[in-house]
Amino acid sequence: MKLDDLPTPCVVLDRRILQANLDRMAQAVSRLGVALRPHMKTAKSFDVARMALAGAPARGGITVSTLAEAEYFAGHGITDILYAVGITPRKLDQVATLNAAGASITVITDDPATASAIAAHPARPRTLIEIDCGEARGGIAADDPALTEIARRLGGCLHGVLTHAGHSYSGRSVDDMRRIAEAERLAAVTAAERLRAAGYACPVVSVGSSPTALHAASLEGATETRPGVYMFGDLFQAEIGTVPADGIAVTVLASVIGRRAAEGRILVDAGAMALSKDRSTEAAPHDFAFGLALDLLGRRGYGHSLVRRANQEHGIIDLDPATPVSGFAIGDKLRIAPNHACLTAAAHDRYFVVDGDDTVVAVWPRINGW
Amino acid sequence: MKLDDLPTPCVVLDRRILQANLDRMAQAVSRLGVALRPHMKTAKSFDVARMALAGAPARGGITVSTLAEAEYFAGHGITDILYAVGITPRKLDQVATLNAAGASITVITDDPATASAIAAHPARPRTLIEIDCGEARGGIAADDPALTEIARRLGGCLHGVLTHAGHSYSGRSVDDMRRIAEAERLAAVTAAERLRAAGYACPVVSVGSSPTALHAASLEGATETRPGVYMFGDLFQAEIGTVPADGIAVTVLASVIGRRAAEGRILVDAGAMALSKDRSTEAAPHDFAFGLALDLLGRRGYGHSLVRRANQEHGIIDLDPATPVSGFAIGDKLRIAPNHACLTAAAHDRYFVVDGDDTVVAVWPRINGW
Repeated sequence: MKLDDLPTPCVVLDRRILQANLDRMAQAVSRLGVALRPHMKTAKSFDVARMALAGAPARGGITVSTLAEAEYFAGHGITDILYAVGITPRKLDQVATLNAAGASITVITDDPATASAIAAHPARPRTLIEIDCGEARGGIAADDPALTEIARRLGGCLHGVLTHAGHSYSGRSVDDMRRIAEAERLAAVTAAERLRAAGYACPVVSVGSSPTALHAASLEGATETRPGVYMFGDLFQAEIGTVPADGIAVTVLASVIGRRAAEGRILVDAGAMALSKDRSTEAAPHDFAFGLALDLLGRRGYGHSLVRRANQEHGIIDLDPATPVSGFAIGDKLRIAPNHACLTAAAHDRYFVVDGDDTVVAVWPRINGW
Repeated sequence: MKLDDLPTPCVVLDRRILQANLDRMAQAVSRLGVALRPHMKTAKSFDVARMALAGAPARGGITVSTLAEAEYFAGHGITDILYAVGITPRKLDQVATLNAAGASITVITDDPATASAIAAHPARPRTLIEIDCGEARGGIAADDPALTEIARRLGGCLHGVLTHAGHSYSGRSVDDMRRIAEAERLAAVTAAERLRAAGYACPVVSVGSSPTALHAASLEGATETRPGVYMFGDLFQAEIGTVPADGIAVTVLASVIGRRAAEGRILVDAGAMALSKDRSTEAAPHDFAFGLALDLLGRRGYGHSLVRRANQEHGIIDLDPATPVSGFAIGDKLRIAPNHACLTAAAHDRYFVVDGDDTVVAVWPRINGW
């Protein structure tokens, strides 16, 4: 089957690019001497997880962003799972069910009352204390007095600390990423040392985002890193150097459904639903609006042709002046590189896999929802 | 079952508000003397369609934005379906399959070559010619010479004309909406009269968006209108007067997963995945960032508390100064009114239905994807 035969819109995954992205990260993490616990929030696919875990420093465990992912991957035999979003007491019941079925779900918290609820719950999951390293999202500061109080309340459930430098996405140079990676490392290691000084074991020191995992000068004291979006890449990650410009593994396949010669514009059947409304590149050096049009082989064959508007099922592409509307007929297919792979992929329930060309070699399902 | 018992994030649909929104539109359309062909792109639910079609001027037909919707609704016995996105020749096969199974799918085109493909295809669906009334998306101008050429090529498939004033979303007053509604009406009626003058029958003259259907002074010459988002409403539609401030029927139920007292901030488990990255209200009189926090009963109990950041699974709510962080515990539930109901609802596969309070009275599935 060829891409041209597929119903549109749908998502194409280029396995050759994916493998190159995995290799680049495996090499970086290997150099840093920590374990890779890939974050499956972007791919949400067992087939992709299998490839990501084949990299040298992987220890077999993954990270997830929802309990639906945890259930899906556990059902496929990946049992060592870190659920890296702050747990609520009510969600412990589902963790208990998964653990009773053979999974080993690790949870995170930054809240003393929740720590008590974890210790009292029959699930008694391994728990990491979430540390804030500057993102100002989840986590307490490494020097917060609550750290040892949470540890005390967790008792035997305490398994280590975790932090996430999500603000690495605001970095614009390798130096920026190194600085943020060092802040991330330092926050986690400082918290771990405080716990150890207070008499608590702290076997896991978990850090990571794609940019900091790739660019860190050292992760000394950390035990694992949790990058995710590096697998697929997207226009934003290419802008900040996580993947090269030709390192975007997921694209949306679309059909031309309208032509406006006077405005140098074509319409495609990939709009806000198929692409998402993500505008990450608005803050990047180059703004790609809602996506960059590529040809059927995924090449930059149409210059700087961008999806300028994204209505529900209409993508409105303003063509590069060197690309005439007359080159497109209704029904012609093209591909669109997305701003943000995590959100774009989430609109679809499967990947049509290619190996660098337009032949579909596999169809891989993915898990969505909660 | 109470909302507080549901796993989060999920979508709550308030049937009482939905009914009020349906009643308001039924009244407007009844006054205008046209048929209501509700657009199911927002709700994508048979249960909602049943309610929307119960309004006085409905003739039993609906509008859809994907062929997946067409298949779903036809499977539930709603057979008179207008697929209001430009058709491609390849998609006619699926239309033929649906029509052979008892549906009557009407398609649209603005392209002569596609018109020939429609007339030559065994599906031979009823076809409307798409007219542009100022949105600059799909459609040809009402005075475009191609109009009669497309009609000639369609032959017996020609069934009328259709236009869509999507630019009514840029209106900010009832006067604006009236002006745009009149341009919409005039474009469709002018095209229909040109066709009739050239000897073609043109039984259907289809117009409509929620704002123009509600506010049009007259739809003389039009036969039907196709509003959709009026059913649910959202923060943006409330800003432009389609629904009142308390007329937003869909909200996202979320749990508190983090607290940052120093910053007056809480984290919830509804982020970009559960809310979408839509920022429609950025261009409205009041900007609600990624959503407005409401209490468990859907009331504005937290003042102007907005979802300021939407990471993948984290919503970061900056609380109104009068709402202290100490009022929230981890696991507490609240609701979030979305910017754009179509995109937010699309992240979820079912509605938890309430009647103005926090008791779940039904669970209604919805159809997503393509």
